[in-house]
Amino acid sequence: MTSTKIKAKRAARQYTWEDVEVLTYKSEGTAPFKDVTRQVLFDDPHLAAQWRYFEVAPDGHTTLERHQHVHAVMVIRGRGACLVGTEVFSIELHDLIHVPPLTWHQFRATLNEPLGFLCLVNSERDRPELPGSEDLQLLRQNPDVAAFIRV
Amino acid sequence: MTSTKIKAKRAARQYTWEDVEVLTYKSEGTAPFKDVTRQVLFDDPHLAAQWRYFEVAPDGHTTLERHQHVHAVMVIRGRGACLVGTEVFSIELHDLIHVPPLTWHQFRATLNEPLGFLCLVNSERDRPELPGSEDLQLLRQNPDVAAFIRV
Repeated sequence: MTSTKIKAKRAARQYTWEDVEVLTYKSEGTAPFKDVTRQVLFDDPHLAAQWRYFEVAPDGHTTLERHQHVHAVMVIRGRGACLVGTEVFSIELHDLIHVPPLTWHQFRATLNEPLGFLCLVNSERDRPELPGSEDLQLLRQNPDVAAFIRV
Repeated sequence: MTSTKIKAKRAARQYTWEDVEVLTYKSEGTAPFKDVTRQVLFDDPHLAAQWRYFEVAPDGHTTLERHQHVHAVMVIRGRGACLVGTEVFSIELHDLIHVPPLTWHQFRATLNEPLGFLCLVNSERDRPELPGSEDLQLLRQNPDVAAFIRV
């Protein structure tokens, strides 16, 4: 939704919203991910943050990445797991996840259901960085992380 | 939660969260409201916004007020109604509500169930303004609004 289309109420329809476009997560080929959609719920120039909804289909995953900007996340659909730093967490309805600056992170749905989460970021933010082979080697020193990540 | 207590995952427990305090909505006597609690989900100094959860008990209401800063809202519990500007909207699970600058607004739960909603604001923001008698007179020109507001 662009600022010119702001209306006071947008009705929810099964994890989609009136006047909110369901977008691809990222441009294909720019980074590894699987079966993720993105919806921008609020992108008001009066707000210093952008509020998005991401949905990861069963067995899908977001990109393993890090950046200077932080994420504030709340699960609102299904369950799954996420890597934050060097730890893998099970996540379910209404759990909160905080991704600090320059912290590797990745979200995965379970095999059976989609994982949907709200994600807040600053409007002004840096581009994500992908892991190099040295980063991956370090991450894989933890067997839980090694088993979890998808690249 | 203060920035010193940030942890990667905070588990949800029936609309409360690990390490998140349930606060009074406002100091008693500062503004008219009824049966509202406030929880600050994310207040990271790296984020330009603060993400809160408000819960209005059955028959309760927030303060009728306006301010320069905007609100981005999503219902995550129950149903209710809200005034935004000069219009009253029924709201339910996952509906989005946008409150533009200097726009009168108030949220009310139904008689039967609590209304819980996420509310995003800029970290830097102005103080709310309460309606004067002239504002109320203008608002009450619309019979739906007159019937809805609680002051």
